[in-house]
Amino acid sequence: MHLLRVLKSLFRVVAYRTKMGISELGTQLAYAGLNQLLKRDSTDADPDIPDDDVNNPVENEIFSSWALFILIMLLIGSLWTSYYLQQKRIQAIHETVVSIFAGMIVGLIIRISPGHYIQDVVTFKYSWFFNLLLPPIILNSGYELNQANFFRNIGSILTFAIAGTFFSALVLGLILYIWTAIGLEGLNMSLVDAISVGATLSATDPVTILSIFNTYKVDPKLYTIIFGESLLNDAICIVMFETAQKFHGQKVYFSSLFKGMGMFFMTFTISLMIGALVGVMTALVLKHSHVRRFPQIESCLVLLFAYGSYFFSTGCHMSGIVSLLFCGITLKHYAYYNMSRRTQIATKYIFQLLAQLSENFIFIYLGLSLFTEVELVYKPMLILVTTAGICVSRWAAVFPFSRLINFVSRARTSHLGLHQTTEEIPPPYQMMLFWAGLRGAVGVALAAGLEGEHSNALRATVLVVVVLTVIVFGGTTARMLEILGIRTGVIEETESDDEFDIESRGAAAAIPLSNSSGSMPAGRMRRSTSYHDDDSEFGSGDDDGLPPMHPSQQDQARASSTSLSNILSRTVDNPGQWFKEFDDQVLKPVFLDNPSNDRH
Amino acid sequence: MHLLRVLKSLFRVVAYRTKMGISELGTQLAYAGLNQLLKRDSTDADPDIPDDDVNNPVENEIFSSWALFILIMLLIGSLWTSYYLQQKRIQAIHETVVSIFAGMIVGLIIRISPGHYIQDVVTFKYSWFFNLLLPPIILNSGYELNQANFFRNIGSILTFAIAGTFFSALVLGLILYIWTAIGLEGLNMSLVDAISVGATLSATDPVTILSIFNTYKVDPKLYTIIFGESLLNDAICIVMFETAQKFHGQKVYFSSLFKGMGMFFMTFTISLMIGALVGVMTALVLKHSHVRRFPQIESCLVLLFAYGSYFFSTGCHMSGIVSLLFCGITLKHYAYYNMSRRTQIATKYIFQLLAQLSENFIFIYLGLSLFTEVELVYKPMLILVTTAGICVSRWAAVFPFSRLINFVSRARTSHLGLHQTTEEIPPPYQMMLFWAGLRGAVGVALAAGLEGEHSNALRATVLVVVVLTVIVFGGTTARMLEILGIRTGVIEETESDDEFDIESRGAAAAIPLSNSSGSMPAGRMRRSTSYHDDDSEFGSGDDDGLPPMHPSQQDQARASSTSLSNILSRTVDNPGQWFKEFDDQVLKPVFLDNPSNDRH
Repeated sequence: MHLLRVLKSLFRVVAYRTKMGISELGTQLAYAGLNQLLKRDSTDADPDIPDDDVNNPVENEIFSSWALFILIMLLIGSLWTSYYLQQKRIQAIHETVVSIFAGMIVGLIIRISPGHYIQDVVTFKYSWFFNLLLPPIILNSGYELNQANFFRNIGSILTFAIAGTFFSALVLGLILYIWTAIGLEGLNMSLVDAISVGATLSATDPVTILSIFNTYKVDPKLYTIIFGESLLNDAICIVMFETAQKFHGQKVYFSSLFKGMGMFFMTFTISLMIGALVGVMTALVLKHSHVRRFPQIESCLVLLFAYGSYFFSTGCHMSGIVSLLFCGITLKHYAYYNMSRRTQIATKYIFQLLAQLSENFIFIYLGLSLFTEVELVYKPMLILVTTAGICVSRWAAVFPFSRLINFVSRARTSHLGLHQTTEEIPPPYQMMLFWAGLRGAVGVALAAGLEGEHSNALRATVLVVVVLTVIVFGGTTARMLEILGIRTGVIEETESDDEFDIESRGAAAAIPLSNSSGSMPAGRMRRSTSYHDDDSEFGSGDDDGLPPMHPSQQDQARASSTSLSNILSRTVDNPGQWFKEFDDQVLKPVFLDNPSNDRH
Repeated sequence: MHLLRVLKSLFRVVAYRTKMGISELGTQLAYAGLNQLLKRDSTDADPDIPDDDVNNPVENEIFSSWALFILIMLLIGSLWTSYYLQQKRIQAIHETVVSIFAGMIVGLIIRISPGHYIQDVVTFKYSWFFNLLLPPIILNSGYELNQANFFRNIGSILTFAIAGTFFSALVLGLILYIWTAIGLEGLNMSLVDAISVGATLSATDPVTILSIFNTYKVDPKLYTIIFGESLLNDAICIVMFETAQKFHGQKVYFSSLFKGMGMFFMTFTISLMIGALVGVMTALVLKHSHVRRFPQIESCLVLLFAYGSYFFSTGCHMSGIVSLLFCGITLKHYAYYNMSRRTQIATKYIFQLLAQLSENFIFIYLGLSLFTEVELVYKPMLILVTTAGICVSRWAAVFPFSRLINFVSRARTSHLGLHQTTEEIPPPYQMMLFWAGLRGAVGVALAAGLEGEHSNALRATVLVVVVLTVIVFGGTTARMLEILGIRTGVIEETESDDEFDIESRGAAAAIPLSNSSGSMPAGRMRRSTSYHDDDSEFGSGDDDGLPPMHPSQQDQARASSTSLSNILSRTVDNPGQWFKEFDDQVLKPVFLDNPSNDRH
């Protein structure tokens, strides 16, 4: 009730001031406005229903203004907390946890206060989430991605993201199916529904953990694996969920599993291609036009093309997340060099700002939803079992596959006679991978699509479990990093442009896979020299007083220029190697602009 | 039907590709998706109604994705046209006109195609307009405002914006009242309703005309007056409209006029104060904290504070536009200097990008609405009379008040013995002011709030008249500039940062009212020297090959440093002069940061 009182007293002040001038405005209306806001006039139910809406836009305007104002205040509060925590170097709590709690408190206030209007406005709307909040985060992830690290670890990332998530969803689905089959809570689910919930709760969150890792500047290898996994497995969970929902109410055969897997791989590939094609198209448009003379239009176009790929892909029943992610990567890899200097900076900053706002918003929203979603049914036992279940399923997703990766990596290393394995994941990293399996808003948004009689109970379970994992795992990640002795404070190139030295940084961060001094076409690509300059700067980033790179990476880099067998081993080790050379010799000359353009 | 066919064939291609992999996904679903999209399943009516929404989010997701994709394609098209027109230096047509036509064509396609789903999604939603589209434009206007020019012409701006708009609304209201009293079309309106419509159609549009003026780099004095007038008169029309609507159905006395005027002035003042306070508060927060060490958070906070002022002001029944405008001005005047370099650039670019997207969006939306708003009733005679009426009312708003300004200006000049008048508005400028009176989206958004039995006819009239004025006046502005012999190609400081020289430009554009070398406190403000440097650069901006400033301004600047009587005359002439000195001596030392911070 505190917020309400604050609001009411605020109104009294305004009303008092207003009364000095005239009597009607302010006094009656502002106060009545607040009361109406709380008591909910039936005509104000939904600002998007045209019939009601047309009749009193000014009134509705006031209501939505207050709702938006409250949300903005929450955002400011959460950002300020974030600043304060970073400024005071407080490691025990993290801003996302604070955001969730702030959301919960405000949600509780809204819940116990009379009236439904604000409650309706702030309810978790999956469509907002998918169309407004998620795209900036994914786009920024792709744009900010350290491409060298990402492609270096692509094997591990894909193993965890695809096989791990698939296995995790199956395990959690089975646990839930068995639990409900026991029938202690009067719930009974089909296997397909159980696997749907399993898929929903296998989407690990790319936001919290990465914001924590960013704060502590965790070792890039671990960062990259967790980043890549959590980004891709969202897409995988969405596709799995949709596939499972298609079998809802149908008889399931063992062959359905393979059918589902086929559908998944196709969706993934087509989505990736849509994203990459849009990115390449943007690069070509920027190359063959003079849009860079109008940087304002150019920035808008880049943003719109990226969003276009997301909505087109979603509209085609593909995965918008995958498309947008790879569109972001392609944009940064090719189109970025064809942009005017101003657009390069503008797009970077805009994507970052939108992503930051969305992230904070999502956690506030999650907290709010706990109390403002009215029809949820909370089943304590189910929640407990599910919480235990996600730990088991995460365990099942991380440890067996880590062993597999280590085994393959060692076998390859001994086969090729290298001293150090490059892909191996040491036990502390495995534990951290397990710990990083906190669930996020994608799961909650997916759960909105659950069908059947128990959907409200399941939705409530998903929401509570997600909030619990964020609070428990998110709140203890910093401590866990210490306990496991994982190196922090590693300054990556991507982190170095706090102040205004984008010139050097932008170039350095965008050289993917450039560890080897492969042959470059000197004729068309006069810029290749600058690539090499940046390359060496990039490879020896640990010389200037920064903590050293991970030893395995250094070894890899050192080994790269010695013998033929090592070059061979590197090519086998790094599945992206062939692409790097193809990229340098064929793609870049086609997609990149001639360096003799008007950029400096 | 063309778009539909394109979409369907697109789907067929996707379906074909998809069929190769599996049979269900893609083929059936994507095709069925499009059909459903057109035939409108009742559950997909509104994506924001939670009950329907919860049940099939994936389906709804697909529909809204297509709608958003179409809008993004339209935006890309309109931006590309804008680029093409600027690139080829085509002056006959302007992008806003193209946007409206593109919107109309797509609207027509949607209208004649079966189904309502897209139609519902793309209907003009006043709440989107007020909460999403308008704020970025206004904020960017305030942030980009040439403060020196604005405050130099503040007298003319306020005269046109307040007195002119008030008079215009009354004249148009009377014309409509008399026309409907004749009763040719079976409409009868009360005087209050007629004045409501008058207010709706007195809001001149700050978007089109300024984008045209920006393209042609029109003389800054004329630009500033039209800019200031169109910005402020939106706020005034909103307040007038709300005031008039409060008298809806009541008996109106002559005293109501004065009451309304009182309400208006209070609203304006309080709104201005809210905006300025938020701006100053932001400056103080930035000064007294270390947020600038975290530029990402800083950028978000600046944006959120600005939006907060808008929604707070609207929530308090004040004018959000006025608050946001003055918040933007205050932010640029004080807070800008306390920001990190990165945030300065980031906020500038982000505000510009958001404003650009919103502007294009609004015109597409207007075009769409002509065909997609189903319940509109078009009355040709009323539309004709209203079109004539707005010309008469604009005439009444511009010419008498221009005479008044010229009379006062001349009287003051002869009284003070100056050779040249500073505020005088020559006849070509008056004509251009008349021509710049095209109406925009604010009017359409306000018209959504009209009540009574004839509201649909009135809404249709407003929409058609707005589109007509944009097409006719907007399409002929370039020609009119030529005919009237108004100087174009004047390069302002605000226009000079196409490439990446923000360092000098940002400083130059942000020195408001700094024509006189007033005394500055040397102790706290070590930065004052750099102000003077920039100041002289700013004053003599016409030496480096650029077209000269307006003669009256030069005279004013020259006269400023000669004799006591001239200083006196300048102070009387320029109502902002006393503020400038107060600002330099008291406000800036308090609000601005010490120059010894970590900015370079």
